[in-house]
Amino acid sequence: MSIDIPETNFPRVVIVGGGFGGIQLAKNLKNKEVQVLMIDKHNYHTFQPLLYQVATGGLEPDSIAFPLRKVFKHQKNFVFRVANVEKVHPTEKYLETSIGEIPYDYLVIATGSTTNFFGNTEIESNSMPMKSIPEALNLRSLILQSFEEALLRDSINEQEALMNFVIVGGGPTGVETAGALAELKSHVLPNDYPDLDLRRMQINLVESAPRLLSSMSPQASKQAESFLKEMGVNVRTNDLVVSYNGTTVELKSGRKLETTNLIWSAGVKGSVIEGINPEVLVRGNRIKTDSYNRVSGYENIFAIGDVAAMITEETPNGHPGVAQVAIQQGKLLSKNIINLINNRELKAFSYLDLGSMATVGRNKAVVDLPFIRFQGIFAWFVWMFLHLLFLVGFRNKLVVLVNWIWNYFSYDRGTRLIIRPYRKNKDVMDEERNLVHAKL
Amino acid sequence: MSIDIPETNFPRVVIVGGGFGGIQLAKNLKNKEVQVLMIDKHNYHTFQPLLYQVATGGLEPDSIAFPLRKVFKHQKNFVFRVANVEKVHPTEKYLETSIGEIPYDYLVIATGSTTNFFGNTEIESNSMPMKSIPEALNLRSLILQSFEEALLRDSINEQEALMNFVIVGGGPTGVETAGALAELKSHVLPNDYPDLDLRRMQINLVESAPRLLSSMSPQASKQAESFLKEMGVNVRTNDLVVSYNGTTVELKSGRKLETTNLIWSAGVKGSVIEGINPEVLVRGNRIKTDSYNRVSGYENIFAIGDVAAMITEETPNGHPGVAQVAIQQGKLLSKNIINLINNRELKAFSYLDLGSMATVGRNKAVVDLPFIRFQGIFAWFVWMFLHLLFLVGFRNKLVVLVNWIWNYFSYDRGTRLIIRPYRKNKDVMDEERNLVHAKL
Repeated sequence: MSIDIPETNFPRVVIVGGGFGGIQLAKNLKNKEVQVLMIDKHNYHTFQPLLYQVATGGLEPDSIAFPLRKVFKHQKNFVFRVANVEKVHPTEKYLETSIGEIPYDYLVIATGSTTNFFGNTEIESNSMPMKSIPEALNLRSLILQSFEEALLRDSINEQEALMNFVIVGGGPTGVETAGALAELKSHVLPNDYPDLDLRRMQINLVESAPRLLSSMSPQASKQAESFLKEMGVNVRTNDLVVSYNGTTVELKSGRKLETTNLIWSAGVKGSVIEGINPEVLVRGNRIKTDSYNRVSGYENIFAIGDVAAMITEETPNGHPGVAQVAIQQGKLLSKNIINLINNRELKAFSYLDLGSMATVGRNKAVVDLPFIRFQGIFAWFVWMFLHLLFLVGFRNKLVVLVNWIWNYFSYDRGTRLIIRPYRKNKDVMDEERNLVHAKL
Repeated sequence: MSIDIPETNFPRVVIVGGGFGGIQLAKNLKNKEVQVLMIDKHNYHTFQPLLYQVATGGLEPDSIAFPLRKVFKHQKNFVFRVANVEKVHPTEKYLETSIGEIPYDYLVIATGSTTNFFGNTEIESNSMPMKSIPEALNLRSLILQSFEEALLRDSINEQEALMNFVIVGGGPTGVETAGALAELKSHVLPNDYPDLDLRRMQINLVESAPRLLSSMSPQASKQAESFLKEMGVNVRTNDLVVSYNGTTVELKSGRKLETTNLIWSAGVKGSVIEGINPEVLVRGNRIKTDSYNRVSGYENIFAIGDVAAMITEETPNGHPGVAQVAIQQGKLLSKNIINLINNRELKAFSYLDLGSMATVGRNKAVVDLPFIRFQGIFAWFVWMFLHLLFLVGFRNKLVVLVNWIWNYFSYDRGTRLIIRPYRKNKDVMDEERNLVHAKL
């Protein structure tokens, strides 16, 4: 049965996902002769680049989340529904969702990506991913619970396992999380746990490639590694995690690390909707599109952002999974959908790489811009400025800024709260990960 | 087996509960010749007076919670453990807890109060209490989920039940929650849900006494009621809830209200520790103490704050369950414990009533001070000023202030996020309510 949606004479564009790409697309369709229907499993947009600060007690979750309805408060052609999309029926042009059937004229898949455990279910059930706010909150709870628990253990080995953190994946998220943990270790935790010898806390960052931040310049990688080492992080490049049973990490090099805290940021895969022809899926479970973001083999289905792999001669592997790609694709697609409706020619996408950056700690960041690369305190200010700029909502910008200023001068992380204790219980976790629309 | 606690030659004062009373007591024992061991089931202090603003999307939960370890950062004689206290053994002078046995020389029960459903299990399993941060977050989720759900219903009756709010209990929490919901109705929800007719949203406040805020002056009650009526709240005094099955509220007057949202703030009861002689429990499950806060029949066990009923000739029912009583009792008890240790005479408690207040909405509050009573915009500023003053932590004060200024000028409530959907599932709720120390 179809759900109840305001009637319209215009074609309906259904956007699945309220991330960077989905929001940009919907905004640029304002005042156009289409009905925009956005579906997301949450009622808010998540600013993923700052999830690691939520996990490490530096920011409250509410300041990096923004209600999706509020983004489009004054957009008359916009409709929003919280729902889980279960399947697409391309021939009949409708979506099967947790709230009913939703017919579309144009479908845009902007579902982003989810953590990739590369099929290792043992790691999946024992490690902490960090791709959503509930996951970041679970990690925040786990970090604090580990220290509370360490206080109760007599065995030095057990204490050390509880105070040992292994972060897998040396991309921006891994580097930023390792740096944030190192700051907790030096400035915050010794005050909180005077009974524990914090020198025994270890932070390990494991990366399979020969260098961290492999998508950035070698100069940035080198500087990030040296920042992290300065801060006491054990950087283990050229190595990878083979297994993790909840207490022992086995690395390919043969080394074993005893830890109860494995943070998994080693990769992502596209969040594909069932019903899309599996033959158009490429490496990383991304959906192959043409240069108009149109999914191969479909006339009226598009994919943008992380979930899309626009495979052309210049980009044989698609574009990197970063916010800028999603934003730029969303912007162009809004024009192309209107072009399509009016039988005008479509414009091919061309990515304008604005650069990339990562922060390691106070006064420490690395920035690669198209014509210049720099590291250190100025890079750190640029990083903060740009993150504030892209954060959605003025209230959020203000609260984040207040927190950053506070954290900087106090050397503190104010939100080290165990609001909902984390339980290593796969069933509960699964429920939380998948639960979308709680029926009353 | 006893837990591992730093050794000491001083007497050990164990404080159960990090609320207003427990914190004040522990602070005032700084640099005294005792070891202070605080136990709480959370690792943070909750500023309960602002929970209703978390529930209604006005504040982030993290800004009304404060890490307990941080409160006592530089207090050398202070030890903290997260634990659930299961039983006290007064003869053997130790506590049985979720983390092991904890011996004490002096025990202070500062466990506060919990929601009182007066034995009605049907109401307990179907209604929303609001005494903790997880409960306030559940309520926030429920409010938003109700509107998302209303969008999906065809039946006007079902829509109205989802948009009908019944608040039981006309004390400060009930009044403040009703006012906050009325502001959501007039300023926020119509923008978020243009498809819903918000005029059909109802807010009912049920109070069994003849007037709201019965602990305040008749003048304050009258003004609060007239503020609420102005804002569109249906005030139903002299009435009480007989039953609630999840969809229909039956009132004693015979009236029936259809609602899926029943907020229960009708009463509290003391959170007593098992093992205390049941004969010392008085009305409201409070522990009877003498005028030194010593529990009747025990030499070295004390109770302060909400859980204590200091029964004397002047206070035949004990003191009101407000923060000021807990703070003042904590302050005096710190002196009396030292007096006791040094065989000096104890000082009897005498409550200095500083007044009480409640806020209804923007520019609308009622304040009763010992020598003056006033209502309106000035009262509202006094209310905000004093709440900021008593809020623990400078960062929290700053973030709350930023939010209040933002909310005032934007007429907005920024944190209307469904981070963890609420499920009306007694088992899950029970787990969340009681879960304290998640084992890894």
